[in-house]
Amino acid sequence: MTDARYMALALQLGRRGMGRVWPNPAVGCVIVGHGRILGRGWTQDGGRPHAEVMALAQAGDAARGATVYVTLEPCAHHGKTPPCAQALIAAGVARVVVALDDPDPRVAGRGIAMLEQAGIVVETGLLSDQARADHAGFLARITAGRPFVTLKLAGSLDGRIATASGDSQWITGPEARRAVHMMRARHDAVLVGAGTLRADDPALNVRGLGITRQPVRIVVSRAAKLPLTSQLAQTAKQSPVWICHGPRADVADWVALGAVSLPCALRAGQVAPEAMMQVLAGAGLTRVFCEGGGMLAASLLGAGLVDELVVMTAGCAIGAEGTPALAAMGIGPLADAPRFALHDLARLGDDVMARWRRV
Amino acid sequence: MTDARYMALALQLGRRGMGRVWPNPAVGCVIVGHGRILGRGWTQDGGRPHAEVMALAQAGDAARGATVYVTLEPCAHHGKTPPCAQALIAAGVARVVVALDDPDPRVAGRGIAMLEQAGIVVETGLLSDQARADHAGFLARITAGRPFVTLKLAGSLDGRIATASGDSQWITGPEARRAVHMMRARHDAVLVGAGTLRADDPALNVRGLGITRQPVRIVVSRAAKLPLTSQLAQTAKQSPVWICHGPRADVADWVALGAVSLPCALRAGQVAPEAMMQVLAGAGLTRVFCEGGGMLAASLLGAGLVDELVVMTAGCAIGAEGTPALAAMGIGPLADAPRFALHDLARLGDDVMARWRRV
Repeated sequence: MTDARYMALALQLGRRGMGRVWPNPAVGCVIVGHGRILGRGWTQDGGRPHAEVMALAQAGDAARGATVYVTLEPCAHHGKTPPCAQALIAAGVARVVVALDDPDPRVAGRGIAMLEQAGIVVETGLLSDQARADHAGFLARITAGRPFVTLKLAGSLDGRIATASGDSQWITGPEARRAVHMMRARHDAVLVGAGTLRADDPALNVRGLGITRQPVRIVVSRAAKLPLTSQLAQTAKQSPVWICHGPRADVADWVALGAVSLPCALRAGQVAPEAMMQVLAGAGLTRVFCEGGGMLAASLLGAGLVDELVVMTAGCAIGAEGTPALAAMGIGPLADAPRFALHDLARLGDDVMARWRRV
Repeated sequence: MTDARYMALALQLGRRGMGRVWPNPAVGCVIVGHGRILGRGWTQDGGRPHAEVMALAQAGDAARGATVYVTLEPCAHHGKTPPCAQALIAAGVARVVVALDDPDPRVAGRGIAMLEQAGIVVETGLLSDQARADHAGFLARITAGRPFVTLKLAGSLDGRIATASGDSQWITGPEARRAVHMMRARHDAVLVGAGTLRADDPALNVRGLGITRQPVRIVVSRAAKLPLTSQLAQTAKQSPVWICHGPRADVADWVALGAVSLPCALRAGQVAPEAMMQVLAGAGLTRVFCEGGGMLAASLLGAGLVDELVVMTAGCAIGAEGTPALAAMGIGPLADAPRFALHDLARLGDDVMARWRRV
């Protein structure tokens, strides 16, 4: 196998941690000696142990003189555990191949410098595009102070998410809904607007996939006047619920039920989407999955905060009285409409799933 | 090659006539003897000569004892030309393989009977599903008294065809627009509502494909108060323009410019879509391509008149002030929404094209 094949394996392992390791990056690591894979590791739930430590533990003494493939620069700082760069040195590895430098100011090249000072050969930049995509949430949080945001829109052929009478179950089929659960599991948190909470009373958890670590469930509501009988309120003690609300909202009842209060600045009388994303990054989130409704989706898109758009389309026509997937956005000329590039296109049962990425 | 391969070739040849042979079916024919293709034919522009006659002319005397593959039962009636069944008998072919019986009451089994009486071996039903799809327009006209209707919707991610300011050029890219021209060419006629004529002043012809036979251009408008300076009005003498209008509309100016007047019954103050389709079938059309706008699209869908839906989606978000691809349809519970099955899914440049068929 070539270096690139080993790194591709490390990236694949790293993705196993997506949605489970925040605020840490979901790193993957492969240790190879004499053409044999000696250790494989990925960042564990909650962020510890790191991928390198897991792979080293598997390799044991065989790591001496081996090559290490790791998807992000090994850490150089003492946190809850000693730095991974130090662990690699102690294990006596000969060569470390890194996909991407870590922009975290506590690392930022110092991990690589530590390795090189110890006489280890270090190479960087292998499969860096894929690594940058995989670590997009971590990178956005460190460099832009906000999480990576995926917005899901699921509706009819004509972009409606419910009929005039509010009927929305089910526009898309079971395969599309299952894909939604898989996407929830790969994000740190699931986000909805107050209207969706009221209209659909969603559980927003991951079901049917054997997932033990549930994403944080977030609802955004200026006044936080949300039904205490809702599924979110009633299960806030079992699985985290955060409320992003205006500075003057009264969330005491929700907090009593176990929810976390996150006050956010307002703009034009609504929770400002940029402020909310800063607060969520500050709370540690790297990947947020927004499931609507139309007002929140339009507000995130309008603020340029959507990195990936997942559009699920069912083969039914609802017409203009139906609820639109996107509320008003105040767009005049077409040139002002946010544009996305098609990333992936697939048939999901009877529905279509198109994934679009920020241009 | 097998029988099925030859029939697939005949079907492929037959499709060359789509949009060019109405009110006739677009038939294909292949003549094979001793494992060699001796003749290939398809129905010519305007419907004559028929596919069998073209293929026989190419095969010449070699047709004696040969096998003929034809996508629709050979005709048995004397029209502008002698029946094809008679021409096949005269040529001395030994075997005729037919994909589909012709439901036309003037044929309806009599073509096959003529051949069998002459001692020719006849087999039917080979690739009949594909033949039924290819001849859907002809079959709909004969059996249901209406043309096959394809509805195109082209819009943003959220199903909008223009911004609030009316900006619609261009939401989709050049590849999608080229595909639209190809679809126009494979239909007998292109249909739009009065609003689209006023808003976009479209030419509705086929450009850039080297097509010599243009589809009929149809506009539907109850009162037919349509701008005489429009491209359609100004080019009605070069390429056919038909107006479907209410019984009391004054279309004298349009007729003077070369347009054809087609009075249709009204329902709820608008041209009734079922009545219009009956009139168009009566005028000979087998395949109609509707390009909107939202009112006409919703009316056709609501009346159950759409056989195929082609949805082109661009990677931009316009929001709820934009013009919806489908106007109001009066749908209450989701179960009442018209459903379509995904037939084909493709990337077209930067856009997505999904083709859905009546369930």
